[in-house]
Amino acid sequence: MGKKLLETVPNYSEGRDMEKVGKIAACFKNKKGVRLLDCQTDTNHNRCVITAVGEPEALRDAVVESYGVAVEVIDMTKHEGQHPRMGAVDVVPFIPCRNTTFEDADVIAKEVAKLVGEKYEIPVFLYEDSATAPHRQNLAKIRKGQFEGMAEKLQDKALWTPDFGPDHIHPTAGVTAIGARMPLIAFNINLDTPNMEIATNIANAVKNIRGGYHFVKAIGIELKDHYSGKETVAQVSMNLVNYEKTAIYRAFEAVKMEARRYGVNVIESEIVGLVPMQSLIDCAEYYLQACAFGPMKFDAKKQIMENWLLEDEEE
Amino acid sequence: MGKKLLETVPNYSEGRDMEKVGKIAACFKNKKGVRLLDCQTDTNHNRCVITAVGEPEALRDAVVESYGVAVEVIDMTKHEGQHPRMGAVDVVPFIPCRNTTFEDADVIAKEVAKLVGEKYEIPVFLYEDSATAPHRQNLAKIRKGQFEGMAEKLQDKALWTPDFGPDHIHPTAGVTAIGARMPLIAFNINLDTPNMEIATNIANAVKNIRGGYHFVKAIGIELKDHYSGKETVAQVSMNLVNYEKTAIYRAFEAVKMEARRYGVNVIESEIVGLVPMQSLIDCAEYYLQACAFGPMKFDAKKQIMENWLLEDEEE
Repeated sequence: MGKKLLETVPNYSEGRDMEKVGKIAACFKNKKGVRLLDCQTDTNHNRCVITAVGEPEALRDAVVESYGVAVEVIDMTKHEGQHPRMGAVDVVPFIPCRNTTFEDADVIAKEVAKLVGEKYEIPVFLYEDSATAPHRQNLAKIRKGQFEGMAEKLQDKALWTPDFGPDHIHPTAGVTAIGARMPLIAFNINLDTPNMEIATNIANAVKNIRGGYHFVKAIGIELKDHYSGKETVAQVSMNLVNYEKTAIYRAFEAVKMEARRYGVNVIESEIVGLVPMQSLIDCAEYYLQACAFGPMKFDAKKQIMENWLLEDEEE
Repeated sequence: MGKKLLETVPNYSEGRDMEKVGKIAACFKNKKGVRLLDCQTDTNHNRCVITAVGEPEALRDAVVESYGVAVEVIDMTKHEGQHPRMGAVDVVPFIPCRNTTFEDADVIAKEVAKLVGEKYEIPVFLYEDSATAPHRQNLAKIRKGQFEGMAEKLQDKALWTPDFGPDHIHPTAGVTAIGARMPLIAFNINLDTPNMEIATNIANAVKNIRGGYHFVKAIGIELKDHYSGKETVAQVSMNLVNYEKTAIYRAFEAVKMEARRYGVNVIESEIVGLVPMQSLIDCAEYYLQACAFGPMKFDAKKQIMENWLLEDEEE
């Protein structure tokens, strides 16, 4: 069904100078095989986050080009902002999107890492599922010490020799992390209460770190001026980092179950940004009790009309 | 996302002679741009039902070819079977499947009708959403009198002049109906009871004709030897003929609501054959209470990863 697509969500350390942001975003505009979906800037964070999809090679070239622009327009020695950061291009994840697997994303992540190291002399750490050692998987651990601490951090050759590029920081662009990861789903549930304690308690009950579902991260967030007219709405804000193993409907039902403890109802859920089709099909199958065993077992690949491929469309 | 695809489900009046059925099915095999999904024969009905998807023109040509084969191998003057029938090719619906609309299906239906009328001298009634008069929409009304009564029926020029082809029946192939329709969803719900009266009561409560949902047809069916080991399972068997207006989840919740009256639970649902992606996304949205209003309103077209198109893939 159509061409191979990857998604990328690169983070750049510039969120105030819109001319500079525009130059970065331009790398993803009017490029054959690439589509810019979103460019969010945050002046407090002094950071911008681009979302783009594209054919793997086209997306690779756009990202590499954006490194060139960022090196030119961003000087990390002068950067300040509330969000932790270690480089002009702080972090670039590649995510399988359509007709692509984790392996496709991993290949492109490593090609970009190699090109960026060679062309711009920026040291690159492969992170997330592309990481070359367990202590390099978690971005927060790589970034610890931030830009200001990176020169010293890279002295520790045993732990922090970069995967690509030089073994010392780029003087103005610092260090960067590139890697492949599976799609994560940003999933928020709005509660019919302004009570933040309830949202926080529910978040704690469902999140992995506090004993909840393995692939759920969650916090309570206070929403102001809800469109319904409610002044304050308490929200359980989640990241579902593996929808195959911790399905959306499980997180949803877990939050509803916890909310009952407080006599609180769910107003609605919000799916923020991109979501893989299969994660929603999984929900439909669950709630419809679509046959899970026996001869009538539902087969999304064969039974969903749009999934049918002609011979010459097959990979 | 890929090429345009239509679905077709032609019905032929031959379900006993597998050599003849094989010749008909062969029209849909090894044809570029066409894929045979299913070929079901029923010896009681003496009928076979083919399911195929394909690019509109390729599918058109395969169906027209199959008319030629059917005319050759089927003699309606000698046909007997339990299912009502009026022609060698009894009825051919075309259904939008992927990147196609009702209009695409309608165009192909009329092209096939014209070709069949000219090439094989079979009178064609356009039916369903392609019908040229309200009394010709319903297949049962067109087919009333069956093959044996068609010669006389066509004497009534005011009501039954064919849309294409001659104004008299084909001596051995009779009459045929061709038309476009929206996808229907065959949706069964298995109840945790063997009591058929309950299934029939529920079917009656949810079906259009008895005051239920507008686009639901339903009957109670007795399932023998359920895979779970239950000897008999009562089933509510439905056709949802417009999933945009009567959604799957509405039919499902209506059956559950009625079943509560009898203290009966739902074991599972069965989705039989093809189902449009959107109908399942609608269920996920409903059950997850995905934001229906306000700035976070869920937009399947933009938020489902696989739905993103590159410029050159757009229609």
